[in-house]
Amino acid sequence: MAAVARSVAPVKTGDAPRSGRSRMTPEREAELYSAVLDLLRKFGYEALTMEAIAARSRCSKATLYRRWAGKPELVATALRHQRPVALGEIDTGSLRGDFQAIVAHMDERHMEQDTALLRALSSAVHAYPDLLQALRGLLIDPELTGLEAVLARAVERGEIASGAAALAYVPHMLVGVLVAQPLLMGRPLDATFARRYVDAAVLPALGI
Amino acid sequence: MAAVARSVAPVKTGDAPRSGRSRMTPEREAELYSAVLDLLRKFGYEALTMEAIAARSRCSKATLYRRWAGKPELVATALRHQRPVALGEIDTGSLRGDFQAIVAHMDERHMEQDTALLRALSSAVHAYPDLLQALRGLLIDPELTGLEAVLARAVERGEIASGAAALAYVPHMLVGVLVAQPLLMGRPLDATFARRYVDAAVLPALGI
Repeated sequence: MAAVARSVAPVKTGDAPRSGRSRMTPEREAELYSAVLDLLRKFGYEALTMEAIAARSRCSKATLYRRWAGKPELVATALRHQRPVALGEIDTGSLRGDFQAIVAHMDERHMEQDTALLRALSSAVHAYPDLLQALRGLLIDPELTGLEAVLARAVERGEIASGAAALAYVPHMLVGVLVAQPLLMGRPLDATFARRYVDAAVLPALGI
Repeated sequence: MAAVARSVAPVKTGDAPRSGRSRMTPEREAELYSAVLDLLRKFGYEALTMEAIAARSRCSKATLYRRWAGKPELVATALRHQRPVALGEIDTGSLRGDFQAIVAHMDERHMEQDTALLRALSSAVHAYPDLLQALRGLLIDPELTGLEAVLARAVERGEIASGAAALAYVPHMLVGVLVAQPLLMGRPLDATFARRYVDAAVLPALGI
């Protein structure tokens, strides 16, 4: 698992880059994140401004900048907040159960929304390195750490041989299918397809 | 393999949507395709115009339109022409050998170029459905058919059990790693990583 090891702490909803100085209630915060993602889906990353976010969520730009370093961090935090559950917290007692729980948490509606977000972000990450950096630090790395915990528990239970070669590639197999499905099949990934893929490809690769 | 079955004929380099009316030599054609991809990498799909392609390749717009229905078809044909070999023609005698040959054909330089192209196209396919349609018809579907032929030969040789569940998901595993690597690791896929991934994840998923 060395290839996916990260030094970042596990995901914790509500945690943010500049903490301790905000007076926002959790409800206001949720409303703000939802506004950010909505604007992102509709207009894309480039056209998204802190002004528009402030206007839409009825707070001042100063309030936003007190809490977040800038647009990349705010977008990354909003995306993380949207995740219904941190991967590392999923612990059903079997790896298949854990994977099915991960898929269940992103029901089809969520997956389509995720695809719209992925679309908005896919070109932006190339044009804006600070966005990719924020996404990696606040979203991708914590999720990789969480996935690592899920897999470590499967190794402890003896489901997967410790040191199994496929362990390091599980992130690629899971993220890959999410990004490849729209290209290959012309439609977003749905939960049924994701479940079949896990059973037919990911678990067998791990020797399960 | 029903999930990846396509009705499109295997890829044939030089074949184009409007054939029989062009008087271009193969050299001129190769030069044109190379100009198209170069402009695409530099300026992106949206900013690419038939005018710029005509100017850069010293031919008239009329010549371009006699041969290609439009920008989507020209871009898709240029991308297909760039592929050093059609997947279906790779036949080393073992599936592992075939996969290693596929990776070898895209050496690291090619992979970086491919990443630049993927970047230019990743947002464009969402904004321009006619581009996605041209890419699917001229590039993706023929490659899927070629991959299907490679896998069918492995089944015939008895390397893979006929009807193995993972067969339908090989395209997702292969395309997935190409698109996921830049997101997960912040760098394009390289040949060494691709070879390890095939050995550690794709072949075991197929029971090899």
